[in-house]
Amino acid sequence: MSTLDDVLARIDANQTDALTRLFALLAIPSISADPAHFEDCDSAADWLARELLALGFDASKRATKGRPMVVGHAKAKRRDAPHVLFYGHYDVQPPDPLDLWTTPPFAPRLVDDDAGQRIVARGASDDKGQLMTFVEACRAFREGGGLPCNVSLLFEGEEETGSPSLPAFLADNASELKADIMLVCDTGMWDRQTPAITTMLRGLVLEEVVLRGASRDLHSGLYGGAAINPIRVLARVVSDLHDENGAVALPGFYDGVEELPEEIAAQWRDLNFDENRFLGEVGLAVPAGEKGRSALEMIWSRPTCDVNGIIGGYTGAGSKTVIPAAASAKFSFRLVGKQNPERIAKDFRAFVKARLPADVRAEFIAHGASPALVLPTKSEALRRARRALEAEWGKPAALVGSGGSIPIVGAFKRELNMDSLMIGFGLEDDSIHSPNEKYERSSFHKGARSWARLLAALAA
Amino acid sequence: MSTLDDVLARIDANQTDALTRLFALLAIPSISADPAHFEDCDSAADWLARELLALGFDASKRATKGRPMVVGHAKAKRRDAPHVLFYGHYDVQPPDPLDLWTTPPFAPRLVDDDAGQRIVARGASDDKGQLMTFVEACRAFREGGGLPCNVSLLFEGEEETGSPSLPAFLADNASELKADIMLVCDTGMWDRQTPAITTMLRGLVLEEVVLRGASRDLHSGLYGGAAINPIRVLARVVSDLHDENGAVALPGFYDGVEELPEEIAAQWRDLNFDENRFLGEVGLAVPAGEKGRSALEMIWSRPTCDVNGIIGGYTGAGSKTVIPAAASAKFSFRLVGKQNPERIAKDFRAFVKARLPADVRAEFIAHGASPALVLPTKSEALRRARRALEAEWGKPAALVGSGGSIPIVGAFKRELNMDSLMIGFGLEDDSIHSPNEKYERSSFHKGARSWARLLAALAA
Repeated sequence: MSTLDDVLARIDANQTDALTRLFALLAIPSISADPAHFEDCDSAADWLARELLALGFDASKRATKGRPMVVGHAKAKRRDAPHVLFYGHYDVQPPDPLDLWTTPPFAPRLVDDDAGQRIVARGASDDKGQLMTFVEACRAFREGGGLPCNVSLLFEGEEETGSPSLPAFLADNASELKADIMLVCDTGMWDRQTPAITTMLRGLVLEEVVLRGASRDLHSGLYGGAAINPIRVLARVVSDLHDENGAVALPGFYDGVEELPEEIAAQWRDLNFDENRFLGEVGLAVPAGEKGRSALEMIWSRPTCDVNGIIGGYTGAGSKTVIPAAASAKFSFRLVGKQNPERIAKDFRAFVKARLPADVRAEFIAHGASPALVLPTKSEALRRARRALEAEWGKPAALVGSGGSIPIVGAFKRELNMDSLMIGFGLEDDSIHSPNEKYERSSFHKGARSWARLLAALAA
Repeated sequence: MSTLDDVLARIDANQTDALTRLFALLAIPSISADPAHFEDCDSAADWLARELLALGFDASKRATKGRPMVVGHAKAKRRDAPHVLFYGHYDVQPPDPLDLWTTPPFAPRLVDDDAGQRIVARGASDDKGQLMTFVEACRAFREGGGLPCNVSLLFEGEEETGSPSLPAFLADNASELKADIMLVCDTGMWDRQTPAITTMLRGLVLEEVVLRGASRDLHSGLYGGAAINPIRVLARVVSDLHDENGAVALPGFYDGVEELPEEIAAQWRDLNFDENRFLGEVGLAVPAGEKGRSALEMIWSRPTCDVNGIIGGYTGAGSKTVIPAAASAKFSFRLVGKQNPERIAKDFRAFVKARLPADVRAEFIAHGASPALVLPTKSEALRRARRALEAEWGKPAALVGSGGSIPIVGAFKRELNMDSLMIGFGLEDDSIHSPNEKYERSSFHKGARSWARLLAALAA
């Protein structure tokens, strides 16, 4: 039996223990957006550092201005082996609305379904389940004769809040983290049977706006008509951000956005993306973005603006005739091509300020900004990765875009000139960022097997 | 010493006990908008019924489909005395935002200030403090020889939620409640020195809208661009409700709105309303309503539309890149003249529906509707009331409008053809519906004395 066969057999034999380990990590509510959970983020980092130490990695928790990083290193059995840096994140999205969860988000459980079993918990797919696929592959190699590659690991705790501490950490630790290639496991499969490698990522600008009017909430009977209502001003901002054709109305927003190369457009057409099924699964029927674009273009290659949350005034049961003193909203812009995140953040603030009437003041809070990224599609590493994925899944891996943002991929390209392979085993219906998030048990199991094959292929 | 002088002396002598009674009522969090406080509404009704029974009233708590009413009756010492019906409400607005209260809203306390002392608590001015001025006046008469008028009392527990149970209760109990005149204590003074009688009231339409898009919250990276965002749709509704001149853009909204008669307009000009001070006290500088109208017109005689609350998506700390499944907002329309509340509610719903794109559904919740009201300004009762108020305050009472709505006044006119005298002792800076609501101790004390004088004047 080859080393790889032995390693794959170990992964198959250790499934129950692997699940137990994953459940322990999923039980930690490491919500990076919420200061009440900062200690939990620390606990998750400690848990991972201990896990890596137990596997013989030189591992430690590393302080930043925000949540800590976890870094680990282990040598290959062969001296001339390539060096890979694996990236994942241990922080998770807030679980609300809590009342829509069937069971508590941080009480992970296995649920039987038609396709097998799924692991249900906040972070099951994004990204704890995914990052543990790689850790389990490493474990099988360490227990089965040694790693085929030199492996470094970097686990972040602020991915869900725009990775504010990451650029400085990379700059400060460049020589320690520099490797031949980065592996990133925060993306998905094309479908349940088809693995995928992501080569296009949208960028992200996160902005929060608080508008303030009167010095206190007012009675709408006594002041209604005469007093400015910040909700009304905020609503106008939100409303004005899109034109009647669904395009973003921020002046200059589309500067740096290019049409898709025909070669890629043709490959995407061949994927036979089922727009009706994609939207139908979440109760929708009509693509809501720019007129004349397909849904796949909208989510992979076109920039967007969304308001992710809004609040102001009385939102309890019944009615309260109040004119609120303040109203606020959170906005996210997904960027493509050469769109400049700093300029868009600046233009957005000017757009808001231009719509403020007398007596209304705006406060802005930046939650992160990163540009879009396009990765090489013809490298040797990509060729080997496709071969490894095809061996595991029996189908060629699709080269796809992603509407999400993974700031580290751009940061590594800029800071260390390293390219990334973005491979993950999430599925479209994993409900990441939503109630009842899940990760297929088969994704977890075959994901670990895929990484084992890929590490062996890179070292071959 | 006349009976009235004796009664006024009793009110002066019993101030401490009167405050103790008021504080007991203020300590009950009878928030009618919140189902969690329905039991507290019952407790407040029980407290009032017990208080009236102790004063020798034939009093009881009376069930409705919503919060209970309290009704009490007591005979005058003279058989041919007039019959008055006094109305007040024991329910209060929700106290949030709680963090802006200096002390807990339902722990009433006396605070010293330049003007004397103020009573601080939710409901101190609206309406528990006000209704207790009348109860204390009755107490002084009962203990000092008997009431000069036949007195009926009606205390409601749903005023802050649009009085949904009131019309049916009036219809069912018309003969019991019919009196010569209704006295309503839910309005204010013109200023700290000048009493006022309110003769114009705006009507009110309360509507809540819930817009629903996808079947669950979506990741804006995976769906952004392709999936409709209900916040964006709701923002457009809010934004479209006013035109660029600050007028309400609902088609036909101004039907039935008449210009102010020159006689009233002249009296209002003579009041020398200080627009800058009125807005400046709450941190504003510029009237935000219809262009070309004074702030006093805007709040007393012009109709308005306000969004009182809005919520959707992620509103916690930090960021969450979600496209929410739903967003909702609460709207209030203040009506004047002959505007038809039912038609405006219907037109509003059509206005929203006309702005729904594919995949967005609207749910509407009505929270009440009442028309505007103009009361006679030349009656004998009004003449006597003005004389009584002038005797107490040393200045003639102003005849004023009110931007607020008191549905019962219209309901009594329609159901029982009874006119009302709306007299109250609240001040503009009482912060009703806001944090740190207060009622001046002088309002409470001289308010009771004013009612004593007024009851005597009506019976003279």
